[in-house]
Amino acid sequence: MINVGIAGASGYTGVELVKLISNHPETKLCAVTSNSYKDSSLTDIFPSMRGFENLICEDLDIQSLSRKIDIMFLALPHKISMEHVPALLDHKIKVIDLSADYRFTNAASYESVYQEHTSKHLLEQSVYGLSEIYRNQIKESNLVGNPGCYPTSILLPLLPLLKEGLILPDGIISDSKSGVSGAGRTLSLTTHFCEANESFTAYKIGNHRHTPEINEILSIHAQQKVSITFVPHLLPLTRGMLSTIYAQATDNATEEKIRKTFHAYYSDEPFLRILDKNMYPAISHVRGTNCCDIGFHFDERTKKIIIISAIDNLLKGAAGQAVQNMNILFGLDDQTGLNSFQGPL
Amino acid sequence: MINVGIAGASGYTGVELVKLISNHPETKLCAVTSNSYKDSSLTDIFPSMRGFENLICEDLDIQSLSRKIDIMFLALPHKISMEHVPALLDHKIKVIDLSADYRFTNAASYESVYQEHTSKHLLEQSVYGLSEIYRNQIKESNLVGNPGCYPTSILLPLLPLLKEGLILPDGIISDSKSGVSGAGRTLSLTTHFCEANESFTAYKIGNHRHTPEINEILSIHAQQKVSITFVPHLLPLTRGMLSTIYAQATDNATEEKIRKTFHAYYSDEPFLRILDKNMYPAISHVRGTNCCDIGFHFDERTKKIIIISAIDNLLKGAAGQAVQNMNILFGLDDQTGLNSFQGPL
Amino acid sequence: MINVGIAGASGYTGVELVKLISNHPETKLCAVTSNSYKDSSLTDIFPSMRGFENLICEDLDIQSLSRKIDIMFLALPHKISMEHVPALLDHKIKVIDLSADYRFTNAASYESVYQEHTSKHLLEQSVYGLSEIYRNQIKESNLVGNPGCYPTSILLPLLPLLKEGLILPDGIISDSKSGVSGAGRTLSLTTHFCEANESFTAYKIGNHRHTPEINEILSIHAQQKVSITFVPHLLPLTRGMLSTIYAQATDNATEEKIRKTFHAYYSDEPFLRILDKNMYPAISHVRGTNCCDIGFHFDERTKKIIIISAIDNLLKGAAGQAVQNMNILFGLDDQTGLNSFQGPL
Amino acid sequence: MINVGIAGASGYTGVELVKLISNHPETKLCAVTSNSYKDSSLTDIFPSMRGFENLICEDLDIQSLSRKIDIMFLALPHKISMEHVPALLDHKIKVIDLSADYRFTNAASYESVYQEHTSKHLLEQSVYGLSEIYRNQIKESNLVGNPGCYPTSILLPLLPLLKEGLILPDGIISDSKSGVSGAGRTLSLTTHFCEANESFTAYKIGNHRHTPEINEILSIHAQQKVSITFVPHLLPLTRGMLSTIYAQATDNATEEKIRKTFHAYYSDEPFLRILDKNMYPAISHVRGTNCCDIGFHFDERTKKIIIISAIDNLLKGAAGQAVQNMNILFGLDDQTGLNSFQGPL
Repeated sequence: MINVGIAGASGYTGVELVKLISNHPETKLCAVTSNSYKDSSLTDIFPSMRGFENLICEDLDIQSLSRKIDIMFLALPHKISMEHVPALLDHKIKVIDLSADYRFTNAASYESVYQEHTSKHLLEQSVYGLSEIYRNQIKESNLVGNPGCYPTSILLPLLPLLKEGLILPDGIISDSKSGVSGAGRTLSLTTHFCEANESFTAYKIGNHRHTPEINEILSIHAQQKVSITFVPHLLPLTRGMLSTIYAQATDNATEEKIRKTFHAYYSDEPFLRILDKNMYPAISHVRGTNCCDIGFHFDERTKKIIIISAIDNLLKGAAGQAVQNMNILFGLDDQTGLNSFQGPL
Repeated sequence: MINVGIAGASGYTGVELVKLISNHPETKLCAVTSNSYKDSSLTDIFPSMRGFENLICEDLDIQSLSRKIDIMFLALPHKISMEHVPALLDHKIKVIDLSADYRFTNAASYESVYQEHTSKHLLEQSVYGLSEIYRNQIKESNLVGNPGCYPTSILLPLLPLLKEGLILPDGIISDSKSGVSGAGRTLSLTTHFCEANESFTAYKIGNHRHTPEINEILSIHAQQKVSITFVPHLLPLTRGMLSTIYAQATDNATEEKIRKTFHAYYSDEPFLRILDKNMYPAISHVRGTNCCDIGFHFDERTKKIIIISAIDNLLKGAAGQAVQNMNILFGLDDQTGLNSFQGPL
Repeated sequence: MINVGIAGASGYTGVELVKLISNHPETKLCAVTSNSYKDSSLTDIFPSMRGFENLICEDLDIQSLSRKIDIMFLALPHKISMEHVPALLDHKIKVIDLSADYRFTNAASYESVYQEHTSKHLLEQSVYGLSEIYRNQIKESNLVGNPGCYPTSILLPLLPLLKEGLILPDGIISDSKSGVSGAGRTLSLTTHFCEANESFTAYKIGNHRHTPEINEILSIHAQQKVSITFVPHLLPLTRGMLSTIYAQATDNATEEKIRKTFHAYYSDEPFLRILDKNMYPAISHVRGTNCCDIGFHFDERTKKIIIISAIDNLLKGAAGQAVQNMNILFGLDDQTGLNSFQGPL
Repeated sequence: MINVGIAGASGYTGVELVKLISNHPETKLCAVTSNSYKDSSLTDIFPSMRGFENLICEDLDIQSLSRKIDIMFLALPHKISMEHVPALLDHKIKVIDLSADYRFTNAASYESVYQEHTSKHLLEQSVYGLSEIYRNQIKESNLVGNPGCYPTSILLPLLPLLKEGLILPDGIISDSKSGVSGAGRTLSLTTHFCEANESFTAYKIGNHRHTPEINEILSIHAQQKVSITFVPHLLPLTRGMLSTIYAQATDNATEEKIRKTFHAYYSDEPFLRILDKNMYPAISHVRGTNCCDIGFHFDERTKKIIIISAIDNLLKGAAGQAVQNMNILFGLDDQTGLNSFQGPL
């Protein structure tokens, strides 16, 4: 059994981790922490858990934690994660950090949109936890920077095409839409029911913090500087994310080559589903799963490609991918604890 | 033209009043106040208003207000209203107070669920603003205690039957359901989109503050102490309220007498719609209107009556009825500024 | 392994069964049928299933089925079930019927709201599948009439109190609210998004077909004729059901006795959760689970009790309870295949 | 008074027209037709109308209509409109057709996505009813082809920039999102509450019928063939539409020039609202109004422009613009009957 701790268990990502780890056949949930609900039990915070998991939220005391856990998931805000990660590693606790703090190789990129990085030396050793792309590095790692939800939905479809030279790195646009749970459980007017319900809007155009994260990974794989146009929107639904991505294919691209490339990269991946021609992902098809569905439309004449990808922002976009990374890290099958499938509702 | 001020214009009830008063043919909106958004313009707070109304939220300075307004709507929390009403009246400003502060005749009832009443002497002169029932007193009044949303939806169908002796005052139950806007614009976990969406729950069973308000009015009209069972619930929708009311009819009650009584009381009332047999109200039928729809089912054998009433909680349940009361108070037709009708969506 | 067939797999209850049976560790899904989607694969009907279950919907040919399955779930409309059940039993296939056809002991009650019963002789041998109450009979049965969703949410809290003489059988009211999935996948104006969204309404007051089902079971356990007042409502959400039940307690009832009774009946039941004083169920707490949450408020002075129960209409109200019954029937633990727990979203 | 008829009054666009015309100070609603609800009264079809408008749906008998109406709104499916328009014009009834039948100048474009046009000669005399752009022609016309909802939301922001040479006609992308009411009141699995709720998906990529309509108008004003990339999506909300449009600005474009151009074209237009820098439209800001809100983000370095526009698909996207066109046609102020403003909910 893998002994697991979860920091930030009272947030939406944190509680999703609690659910996954509690249902996971190879793990034991040994400790949960929460800053806002210290000393509360999980069922006090989330009555849906009555009768299942009832740990008490404790302090994030690494000394004490190091005696009970092998791995810690950090579902904390950026900057707060950095305050704990070095000590966790010193105590031989593996870390999967769901904040942005260890997603970047380049500290300057990080600092341009977050704040000063206080443990830059760890950026070299941390691995970007996009499971399907970085599996080999994750296996060897003790610090995973789990990707953002938007980057996951955008990078998974783009990387195979970029790496195979089937799309141009310039002029890529991602028009992305997220459910409200992406904004977290913290109160704000944006997430007030009456403000989000029956509405839809774009936000943070040109300055969303996920943009440099996406660009860094795209640039590495394109072997040139890539700078995408990224526009996030807020959907009036609880969970799910869909990105509509526009790119220019290269002259030698054909619909068949594109399809073959997707299949070559992802056919053996249990969570990646490439849809047939004229089929497109819907949020309802992936909600409650760790899947990323990908469909595309290719115009042979103009060489324009439109790719649609859909994920559950709390699963493949956060807690699900984090558990998948834990599975990889401990040599388990990716699907362990993540393989139950969902109906349409 | 009636010169109008609105206090608390940045809340959901306040802004609904702004909308109604701005669209009203016989009023001029002269002043708005907001505690949270002092010195902001209405369009900064509510971008939907761009191009229409753009007053700046000012202090609630009665000296200054008294030079510009004839009537003040107070969309303020209880207790805060009381702090201003005596001075407003002293300055000859008529008041329609949407808080609970002037709804009670009996100060003890008020104090049992709110707090000490600091202007008890005004309770005798204030009129309960249930328009269809208290029209004559409203005409003569300068202080209206505008009813709560739940009381409006419950009292309008019950009062005619109680007054005509068609139902027993004992054992009345109201199972009521409200949209989220009833909880206001203030932030809370209850109104977080992800908590309210796709959920439904009862709350404050046995201790909702609207219970004594309902009981006081029922008791006056039944000429005996009435104590209803009231269970409020939270619906996953923005606006609307529906009450399902259960009562025991008296021996001499018949379906025909009940129907005739409703028609006798309300056929001339523009906002009360009595539905035909086997037709029941829906929130979508009254949303965006000042209407109260009433339907009922009567079991001749058991003499049990089930009444369904539906209102828009922000209109007939708050701002709409307040404007109706202003119309009555100034001798206008009830429907002035309230007569546009809504489609199904 | 238990070999399972599911009839009506293209409906919402049917597909929920497919999901549960596919994720169940002790079953193998061997056959699915659908009238509307004959020869289609499940993933054609429900793209969320891509990569998981992909059986082809076949004819309901009992001869052929009898060679592959031990038990058949019928997620069919009433009347259609009756056409197949006798032959299924003749072929030694156990049946869990989710229609109303085998829920009644009294054929006349059934016929008063449905139609002529064509296999009345089976009503004696069929067991009403309210798992916690009829567990012993279910164990021995080969034909289970799986309860309706409303009856489940109403009977589970009422039966212990009735059997222990803590509430009066007369005057019980259930004000019940269901999500839209309860209306099935068949198209109708009622379930059109624009008609159900942002609305709420009561329907079939006084003539819903679940009323005699509820009354029959209540009467058996109260040992006298019981006739409840039942008012169903339609909630603007996909899955979940909440009943607010009003009853008069007997003179000897106390809050403590009521609580003790609930615990005596249900503390060992994995899916029944009795909430502490002042805690009430919410649909979000049971969605995605087979749980029934029960909370209550008792007024010592008036001896009135208000009980709130919540279930997921597709699980404890349909497919989940059906699988629980299968578990009981085959000697498995109730929770097998039903024990994953849900987070708050 | 203008005497008005509305064909197709039982659909969502039809009933929105009924609402607007009934509330309009200069019109009298004299006739309504419905194919599905012949001889039903409007309140039978739409109970929200009880007490307001109660016409009976009649046959579309032009002889009879010609004696009572001056203008007919056709809220009919394409092809059905064409069957009536020539005779309506022959009987001197002005026509505002909300189908696609008279939106095209080029019959071949129409026929490429719809079917054979049976009154091609009228395409020259019909005017495309994009009110702000074609006001002068609408004034003189007796046949208006009212624009589609998507085209309205896309053309209004693009035309000023194209005409002033501030954006390139090539490579324009519109990622558009519509509420479910855009799919009409006809039943389909797509509009079933349980399928649309909590989901989001793209549809008809590369073959939506609004694409040639958009391209025709863009091409006329760009004086060259324009071919946009248009991807429509379905939002889980009832009414509203938002388009996120990506274009390449020309070398001489600056943020200031773009802003000035928008203001030059639209500052005097009561329904067009150009938002300040860093402000973006939301569906909740335009719902219930005839407004089109436009905001944009310009990257000076890359010369890329991102424009967001939002409308209410049933108002500016259909019935509202149709009434605006009627106002123009009869020499009324555009805002007549359309000037009430909405609050945030």
